[in-house]
Amino acid sequence: MTAMHTSEDELEAVLAASWEAFEVWSASTAQRRAAALTEIAARLDAAADDLVPIALRETNLDEARLRSEVSRTTFQLRLFAEVVREGAYLDPRIDHADATWQAGAGRPDIRRALEPLGPVLVFTASNFPFAFSVAGGDTASALASGCSVVVKAHSGHPELSRATAEVVSAALDLVQAPAGLFSLVFGTETGRTALTDPRVRAGSFTGSIQGGRALFDLANSRPDPIPFFAEMGSINPTFVTRAADRRRGEQIAEGFLASMTLGSGQFCTKPGLLALPRGSQTLARLRSLTRPATGRLLNERLREGYLRTLGDLVARPEIEVIGERARAFSDPPEPIILMSDVAHAIRDPESLLIECFGPASLVVLYDHEDELLALARTLDGQLTATIHAESEDDVTELIRLLARRSGRLLWNQWPTGVAVTYAQQHGGPYPATTVAGSTSVGTAAIGRFLRPVAYQGFPDERLPPALKEGNPLRLSRRVDGALQI
Amino acid sequence: MTAMHTSEDELEAVLAASWEAFEVWSASTAQRRAAALTEIAARLDAAADDLVPIALRETNLDEARLRSEVSRTTFQLRLFAEVVREGAYLDPRIDHADATWQAGAGRPDIRRALEPLGPVLVFTASNFPFAFSVAGGDTASALASGCSVVVKAHSGHPELSRATAEVVSAALDLVQAPAGLFSLVFGTETGRTALTDPRVRAGSFTGSIQGGRALFDLANSRPDPIPFFAEMGSINPTFVTRAADRRRGEQIAEGFLASMTLGSGQFCTKPGLLALPRGSQTLARLRSLTRPATGRLLNERLREGYLRTLGDLVARPEIEVIGERARAFSDPPEPIILMSDVAHAIRDPESLLIECFGPASLVVLYDHEDELLALARTLDGQLTATIHAESEDDVTELIRLLARRSGRLLWNQWPTGVAVTYAQQHGGPYPATTVAGSTSVGTAAIGRFLRPVAYQGFPDERLPPALKEGNPLRLSRRVDGALQI
Repeated sequence: MTAMHTSEDELEAVLAASWEAFEVWSASTAQRRAAALTEIAARLDAAADDLVPIALRETNLDEARLRSEVSRTTFQLRLFAEVVREGAYLDPRIDHADATWQAGAGRPDIRRALEPLGPVLVFTASNFPFAFSVAGGDTASALASGCSVVVKAHSGHPELSRATAEVVSAALDLVQAPAGLFSLVFGTETGRTALTDPRVRAGSFTGSIQGGRALFDLANSRPDPIPFFAEMGSINPTFVTRAADRRRGEQIAEGFLASMTLGSGQFCTKPGLLALPRGSQTLARLRSLTRPATGRLLNERLREGYLRTLGDLVARPEIEVIGERARAFSDPPEPIILMSDVAHAIRDPESLLIECFGPASLVVLYDHEDELLALARTLDGQLTATIHAESEDDVTELIRLLARRSGRLLWNQWPTGVAVTYAQQHGGPYPATTVAGSTSVGTAAIGRFLRPVAYQGFPDERLPPALKEGNPLRLSRRVDGALQI
Repeated sequence: MTAMHTSEDELEAVLAASWEAFEVWSASTAQRRAAALTEIAARLDAAADDLVPIALRETNLDEARLRSEVSRTTFQLRLFAEVVREGAYLDPRIDHADATWQAGAGRPDIRRALEPLGPVLVFTASNFPFAFSVAGGDTASALASGCSVVVKAHSGHPELSRATAEVVSAALDLVQAPAGLFSLVFGTETGRTALTDPRVRAGSFTGSIQGGRALFDLANSRPDPIPFFAEMGSINPTFVTRAADRRRGEQIAEGFLASMTLGSGQFCTKPGLLALPRGSQTLARLRSLTRPATGRLLNERLREGYLRTLGDLVARPEIEVIGERARAFSDPPEPIILMSDVAHAIRDPESLLIECFGPASLVVLYDHEDELLALARTLDGQLTATIHAESEDDVTELIRLLARRSGRLLWNQWPTGVAVTYAQQHGGPYPATTVAGSTSVGTAAIGRFLRPVAYQGFPDERLPPALKEGNPLRLSRRVDGALQI
């Protein structure tokens, strides 16, 4: 795999090795998996000076951002190591045999815990070349859970992908992980071929709705469909009440502008829709604020897509541009804010409420706060939804409507910056993702590559360690229905 | 809906009411949902004398079995009520804001818990007219989790479906649940139309691979795909070591015959494949045992399918019939045991290792125990896999291989009889189910109709009760990474 292309023979070797490595890795101890994750983290931190310059060349992102992304990536790997050591993610449940159970029907001894799915195919993202790429969240959670990993490199940063993969592989060699546990492949067709291979047991993706849906459909078209976790599009609506607008208009305008232009607006959590009252303080301030300079877009393909979507939007009669229009189409693009009415957005959401991946957002104006509820009802699945309100506002119904439609709700904050924590939820109903029950950020992400297996009537010495009577791993478990820490 | 047919207008009314009921029910307290479940259970128990005779007429199942199934069904409803009252199924996680988190990048206050998906469409099973039908497991877990339910009645027991639905509705009226929370519809096309309706947010199914796959494909073909939990086919392989065969051949033969003929072999966990050593004691005993009388099959459609599959199998040159063949094709059918070699099964698994839904199973003979590993590697996804072995047997690799391919492993027991418990897992890799991470029996089944929602930076009074700082619901929660009971 010296060239940026993977041949059919090379892919066959990768998949065969990945399956064999899975057989070994799935039976490895938590200590061993944790050690591998921390070793990868240490080596990535040590290699940052080599990797960041490659990323600078390939992505148009700036150095400070890239360095902080490396740090986020290695933090994530180490956090998964902790999750693995703790072991509660296995959700171990033990029911002792009980002849009195179910009105005398009785129950046998049954013990259940989660086990890894198998080789995982990870389609990486363009906009986070470290944190959602070769050594990113999906790779970390797959390795943590006992799966092997085949990464399909993003065409936007092939050199960085290869260099990162070398660091990961060296770390895995050092901890004597099985050969083939982690591999990198190149090419769109290679990715599609791998996704339909029977040895691949799950897939994940971060990118556009079009790309994610095509792969989701492919995964489901298999003779044996596999879970496919695609994180796709979101306009991340923000709702500002009249009271909040009046009291904190300046602050909201500044926060919004900063959030929508972060990373040149190429975040999946960019606030792409801002609902404001007519006569808004926030809007007045937005008109006068100096727009921050944004960097060039990640690559030419994304730039073309952005300019096409933006061009369609500004051409619509119900949309007005705040400020100057021309420089939004230059390279690098200047941030651009579009404006329309809530009523228009509700009438034609498929044209107006669309993701525009770059430094553009749409402000929609309302006359009555009831229109916010109607707007919320118009929305499809979102990664995030944000409310800016004051303590006297009655937004109970708005919160309820938005909770139905999104994975994360924010109160008087901004959705960009997805912290890697225990309670994080980065997901949401379709089209935000294809699996609303899953997250791609945070410790709960380890669940996506696992499934439950129950053992009935097994002698103690034949049980997996997590389910043995004496609890040798000292796990929190549910025993006869009661949680035990 | 007086006739056994649901018109388009009736379906529209059902779905509109289901959506409205969901809006109310999803915000209901745990107490209210638990009360509804226990009321349904009480009314079903009280109505057993009316319902069982209808089931007798429609299903060919006997009274003792049907009465015990009612009891299982109401036990299940009451157990879900307990799960709801306990509340740990919400998996509440609280991360307090922490500026030192992630090497100073910091984290905001984020709190996450599971919330219900929306109206659920339940396609019921033919073989458990109570426990996997109108008031069965999926209805119980959907109502428990805060979803509304539309049940598509099985054509095999329409009168019973209607009578059961009346009992459920009366119970829900009594506890003043919202109108439309639970509905029954009839007709294959009605089911397909409902599954593609945007108001339906999840589906479940129990039945054949063909039927389940068609609905799974339909659910995924939607503009907004929804989770579809189909529990389908499984041959539930059983592996007997030479030592176990020698020591307990008689007992294994008796256990196998009892398990494979239970419910006339119409259980999704029927042991359909039994691997025995050549010269087997078990086989000798099987040849001499009197076959138990089995009842008529559930309905004419299933009987035709069974006879067709069985006919194909007995016509194969590599298959021998143990005992008499003719009465296996009579009505009611006599149990039939087929015999072949492990080598044949491995050579042509698609012809030989298929589910035959009725009182028929295939015995395959091996010369060396290594063949058991090869046979295990041949298997696709299974609900269960069973090992009969002795303490001196080395079956570590066999256990590992079977754990990869099934949802539940049994040791010296039989797979029929799926106890409703905390640790139960009734599921498995495709084609056993379409979602290997889920179960349709046991308390973990409540998870299938839920998804996580995170709240970031919310004032305490705006948070759902499960996530409030003071823990008013007294739930087990994960706070700043640590489990707290």
